[in-house]
Amino acid sequence: MIDTPYLAVDVDRLDRNIDAVATQARTSGLDLRPHTKTHKCAQIARRQLDAGAVGLTVATIGEAEMFAAALTSSRTDSAPVDLFIAYPLWVTATKGDRLQALAQQTRLRLAVDSVVGAQQLAAGLGGSEVEVVVEVDSGQHRTGVAPDDAGVVATAAADAGLQVVGVFTFPGHGYGPGDARRRAAEQEIEALSAAAQRLRDNGFDPIVRSGGSTPTIEFSGSGVLTEIRPGVYPFNDAQQWELGSCTADDIALTAVATVVHRSGTRIVTDAGSKILGADRPPWVSGFGRLLDAPDAVVTSLSEHHAVIEYPAGHPVTSIPDPGATVHMVPNHVCTAVNLVDELIVPRDDGSAARWPVVARGANS
Amino acid sequence: MIDTPYLAVDVDRLDRNIDAVATQARTSGLDLRPHTKTHKCAQIARRQLDAGAVGLTVATIGEAEMFAAALTSSRTDSAPVDLFIAYPLWVTATKGDRLQALAQQTRLRLAVDSVVGAQQLAAGLGGSEVEVVVEVDSGQHRTGVAPDDAGVVATAAADAGLQVVGVFTFPGHGYGPGDARRRAAEQEIEALSAAAQRLRDNGFDPIVRSGGSTPTIEFSGSGVLTEIRPGVYPFNDAQQWELGSCTADDIALTAVATVVHRSGTRIVTDAGSKILGADRPPWVSGFGRLLDAPDAVVTSLSEHHAVIEYPAGHPVTSIPDPGATVHMVPNHVCTAVNLVDELIVPRDDGSAARWPVVARGANS
Repeated sequence: MIDTPYLAVDVDRLDRNIDAVATQARTSGLDLRPHTKTHKCAQIARRQLDAGAVGLTVATIGEAEMFAAALTSSRTDSAPVDLFIAYPLWVTATKGDRLQALAQQTRLRLAVDSVVGAQQLAAGLGGSEVEVVVEVDSGQHRTGVAPDDAGVVATAAADAGLQVVGVFTFPGHGYGPGDARRRAAEQEIEALSAAAQRLRDNGFDPIVRSGGSTPTIEFSGSGVLTEIRPGVYPFNDAQQWELGSCTADDIALTAVATVVHRSGTRIVTDAGSKILGADRPPWVSGFGRLLDAPDAVVTSLSEHHAVIEYPAGHPVTSIPDPGATVHMVPNHVCTAVNLVDELIVPRDDGSAARWPVVARGANS
Repeated sequence: MIDTPYLAVDVDRLDRNIDAVATQARTSGLDLRPHTKTHKCAQIARRQLDAGAVGLTVATIGEAEMFAAALTSSRTDSAPVDLFIAYPLWVTATKGDRLQALAQQTRLRLAVDSVVGAQQLAAGLGGSEVEVVVEVDSGQHRTGVAPDDAGVVATAAADAGLQVVGVFTFPGHGYGPGDARRRAAEQEIEALSAAAQRLRDNGFDPIVRSGGSTPTIEFSGSGVLTEIRPGVYPFNDAQQWELGSCTADDIALTAVATVVHRSGTRIVTDAGSKILGADRPPWVSGFGRLLDAPDAVVTSLSEHHAVIEYPAGHPVTSIPDPGATVHMVPNHVCTAVNLVDELIVPRDDGSAARWPVVARGANS
């Protein structure tokens, strides 16, 4: 008996999700380099690699360090872990030292999105052997250069002594309703195609053209992309459910919660924003969803309370009373997992494994 | 040199905030029982107790366990720690065992908000000596009974063997623009007054009438309340800043971040939702604020990116370039602190203390 609230993983669904995307990538001739910021968990990264992933994506140096340590120690062969830090780091002296140490332990790929950033990175690396790719803005307007500027950044990086192998983008604006997914995927292909051409114009061979997110995977097989980096797909979440990029049956992680209060058609559970995360894009229906009652709406979250309203048509006798257990689906699984030290993985015999979230909080 | 992003505490501002509310409570004749979910940090709880707090408020059994351990071991006298778990727990067998252990170590007060919950609590406690207070809904419509039902719950609790000492509420709907703060404070007083009367009607002496939140503190001195439980005031945050319950000079915690990208008047920093939290009530101006540039707007947060737009009138030369350090104020400090293992506390000599967030993630 584990005290609620906690995050539980359905390992059968997890494995099915990992296999499905691995197969999809293989069929489309794409390298799969899953983003591990979603799970931060060595047991899941290992499953992704065993299913055919060419390497892993991380967001921070700290995540890279944790995965390098966790996977090196659990490997049965001697190939170094292959990691891509998909972030335009500003490399201070200490971050440079950490990258140099990582470059010894792993096969390392890094990102640049400006001339100054590339020069700073090269200085920090002090000649360590790494590959770099140029980040391109495909329409999210976050980091990344305009596709037409990719050649300038690549040239500056090469002049600073870095080995440029291609371009990458993140079509984060595909997280939206309607045909946002399809449009973002089109812009992704266009931006990578244009940026790759600018690299060729400047004498580079852009062998890496990396993109892809869980909502845009299905549109990635155009021949332009060589690699996809989806993160959320092992678990899925309420956002993906509402976007239509998964169904309820594909959701492999839930917050197991206890009902602590009921007033008519309103219940309150003990899973709040400190376990579900507070993410709430304007286009989702609530602050998460109930896996077993898709018509119920999570109308508000406090730190340790989720307030849930059942609609008028819902059978009153099936609204759970205090003491009942419910399974809540976070809106954004990546921020939920980052709130716990371990994931609970129930086994068929009624016991449960505990998988450490080894890179939890590794923000820098 | 600490790698960004990290959460930094300005200890002078922290001490000033702690003293100000302690003085305000003392002047108004109110007991101060700060909610420690905000900081989850023994060093700060100790400062609050030293400034005159009568005890601490926590949200979960896990938080109570962590504070009981951390404060007992650091105490120079032998008085037990005085803890109130301000949450209508649904007490399973394991939670009952944990509460019994806590009742041995601490002076413990618990909450009930239903007849079944009170009976369940009494069964789990197995006769351990604790006080209970009845939670009342003062308008937030989360947990708590209607004031008129407080007598029924108190009677059920007493019948089950619990020692009822009063009533409490949380005016969470005071987190809103306009006169929401004042109106919520009025409703709080009204609800506690009515509920206390229902207890008296049923033969109880409601010596505890506890309420109060950081936004409603200033309206608490009416004679109805005996105790306030503000949480955010040691640090403050962007929500409190925008509500007008603090000024920029009162903000004692920031996320120290590095600018990693600039495109004209748009910058991107390395502090995203995994260090600032994703809380964004509809009435705030963005996903956090910049302490030193209140006119800049945090237009979006990803997990490791904050996108910040400077307005047309802002001097272009004072917009920070890549590599610059900025201080970001989270919208909701309680969820930001819960994302890190330690708070960085810079000292005058250029070194820094590290204060562990001992109750981080203690959700159950």
